Amino acid sequence: MEIIVQKFGGTSVATAERIHRAARRAVKAKQDGCRVVVVVSAMGDSTDRLIKLAREVSEEPPRREMDMLLTTGEQVSIALMAMAIHSLGHEAISLTGGQVGLITDAQHTKARIQNINQERLLKELGQGRIVIVAGFQGVDESGEIYTLGRGASDTTAVALAAVLGAKQCEIYTDVDGVYTTDPRLVPEARKIEQISYDEMLELASLGAGVMHSRAIEFGKKYGVEIHVRSSMSDTTGTLITSEVAQMEQIVVSGATLKKDLAQFVLVGLPNEPGVAAEVFARLAEHNVVVDDIIQTVDNSGMASTSFTVEHGDLAECKLVVRELQEEFKLSQVVCNDPVAKVSIVGVGMRSHTGVARIMFKALAEGHVNINAITTSEIKISCIIEPEDGVKALRAVHAAFELEKEPAGQ
Amino acid sequence: MEIIVQKFGGTSVATAERIHRAARRAVKAKQDGCRVVVVVSAMGDSTDRLIKLAREVSEEPPRREMDMLLTTGEQVSIALMAMAIHSLGHEAISLTGGQVGLITDAQHTKARIQNINQERLLKELGQGRIVIVAGFQGVDESGEIYTLGRGASDTTAVALAAVLGAKQCEIYTDVDGVYTTDPRLVPEARKIEQISYDEMLELASLGAGVMHSRAIEFGKKYGVEIHVRSSMSDTTGTLITSEVAQMEQIVVSGATLKKDLAQFVLVGLPNEPGVAAEVFARLAEHNVVVDDIIQTVDNSGMASTSFTVEHGDLAECKLVVRELQEEFKLSQVVCNDPVAKVSIVGVGMRSHTGVARIMFKALAEGHVNINAITTSEIKISCIIEPEDGVKALRAVHAAFELEKEPAGQ
Repeated sequence: MEIIVQKFGGTSVATAERIHRAARRAVKAKQDGCRVVVVVSAMGDSTDRLIKLAREVSEEPPRREMDMLLTTGEQVSIALMAMAIHSLGHEAISLTGGQVGLITDAQHTKARIQNINQERLLKELGQGRIVIVAGFQGVDESGEIYTLGRGASDTTAVALAAVLGAKQCEIYTDVDGVYTTDPRLVPEARKIEQISYDEMLELASLGAGVMHSRAIEFGKKYGVEIHVRSSMSDTTGTLITSEVAQMEQIVVSGATLKKDLAQFVLVGLPNEPGVAAEVFARLAEHNVVVDDIIQTVDNSGMASTSFTVEHGDLAECKLVVRELQEEFKLSQVVCNDPVAKVSIVGVGMRSHTGVARIMFKALAEGHVNINAITTSEIKISCIIEPEDGVKALRAVHAAFELEKEPAGQ
Repeated sequence: MEIIVQKFGGTSVATAERIHRAARRAVKAKQDGCRVVVVVSAMGDSTDRLIKLAREVSEEPPRREMDMLLTTGEQVSIALMAMAIHSLGHEAISLTGGQVGLITDAQHTKARIQNINQERLLKELGQGRIVIVAGFQGVDESGEIYTLGRGASDTTAVALAAVLGAKQCEIYTDVDGVYTTDPRLVPEARKIEQISYDEMLELASLGAGVMHSRAIEFGKKYGVEIHVRSSMSDTTGTLITSEVAQMEQIVVSGATLKKDLAQFVLVGLPNEPGVAAEVFARLAEHNVVVDDIIQTVDNSGMASTSFTVEHGDLAECKLVVRELQEEFKLSQVVCNDPVAKVSIVGVGMRSHTGVARIMFKALAEGHVNINAITTSEIKISCIIEPEDGVKALRAVHAAFELEKEPAGQ
């Protein structure tokens, strides 16, 4: 009998009624002949409410106690889900991260999964039970409780699917799949039938908030087929899967717009080995996440480095940059704030030429000025003015005809 | 260094502010030179809210999943309490029932403590930490989660005090101690300075809701001194302790009134060995809690049995009694509903005569009719009409001069 893992996010278990809807899905899968593992997040806004409580009690709550606090949210959900399945006349058992043997490393609030003991899972499944597992949490060898970071219930689900060799990991959410771009900004956006892990990883890091990046990485590493779909309907969603030859015929799979960025340009860095390493090590020490790094050397032999950061890291980044300016006696520091970034993603870029040209032409025809360009093997990003953002996104989306069903599928 | 256990009930941790007040008490005890263990209940009405959620999801939630659900309430409290103590600049660590090694038997929703591993507790205390333990919960050897029944955080606290050989177990609550009777009914009621475990057990079972009976039993069994006191003030509360010679000089320690009772009289039972056993076994099978059992034999050689039950068990009891009536072909079944019970409790009764006479005289002078009388070694109870309840309680309280400080103390 094949195993299926179903994951229900916070909005999909926000009320008793929605929990029942999710429970019926699990029961349906069992009746269809699968062994079923269900992973749930905390109900609706309950994690936010717990965080608010913690802030009322302490300005700087210890991370260990935050983990102790927040893991209760998922524990409530698993108990209620098991009750709902029981009330439908089917056997179910809820298991905490500790009970399921999900072992993590010892980093509070951002632990990583080290091992999952499949013994307990297989035993319960073997007895015909639907097994409900608390997402987002695990324990270390001593029974200390850890969380995997926000949104990491996806990771729990994909990791369980990997360890159990599940047929598929279904991610139920409040959208019906992954779109070529944000439909709120581009009404022509189209649901993608199938996408590769790499493309999905790029889209996720570019702000397409459907899935947690680490879950996709896990899926890629262990070859777990991930089906992102709506908890409100029965329509097929988006399949995230290994790259197939067919996918290469699709040059661009999606386009994204990321706002609330700031761009720093450090002018006059010594062009010597180790300088860039020193600059970005310093930023990393302060937990500043940087992206879109560009380094050039000017006529005088000095280097210029530019990079972008999200607004959340802006204040911290400014402090570090001020230090660096003194230390390296930089001739100039520029901070362009805010800026936006429009990107296209597609594995087909590897084997197709002229992709960049189409993008730049579309932006030019839309009178969008490009401040900087960065590329990866399957992505092209342009830093632009925020007020041009939506216009640029629509122009790019149209230029690659993303609204049309690709011929290859 | 002596160990002290402090237990804070739901109202004492209902808000961030109250959690801070409780945290300051724990820190104060540490600064006074004690090693401190804190036991907490779930915040305010959070257990009731979780029960309501469960009922929305399922009419008959499995007991196992109720335990999974309800233990989250205490887990939230321990995390917040540890955060509060940290924010006061002191080291604290929260531990779930499982982490503290509180091992129970395998009865969901009403498990009993079998063992507590003091190793972890002593290790954390030895590192100068205030240890915060989740009340009301434990695990079995396999890590399955159990609760000890409602109000059982008291039991957790006293059990920890016992296992650690603590100097005292402080029970912080919303009243400032145990009273000679309910002050809302008898304004002259006086706070009792010191009371024996046996007296407190009787008072608790007679409806003085200050403490959980099992906690008192634990205290008696392991000789743990229990201090019931207010979380809102620094005044001394009531000390529950072993009987001392001095106590015997006090004939009556307290008086109680229990309402919402029903009395059943089964007339015409065969006066044969095993019949009473059969009757009460049947009631116990249906989880009906009976009290005040009286059996008499009439002229015809048939037995009459009367007993009281609380209103919560009334419907179930009626069903069982109907069965018994057919089976034993009872000549008559009477159900007096509602009735009340006024009782006096005191270890001094053992060595003093005339106690019953004073009680009956006081009731007679108050024109209170007595339907039935039951006694134990340290208790006299009279079943009366509910409308006479408060009048009877006041008369008895006055007759034994309970409002006066006893001479012996």
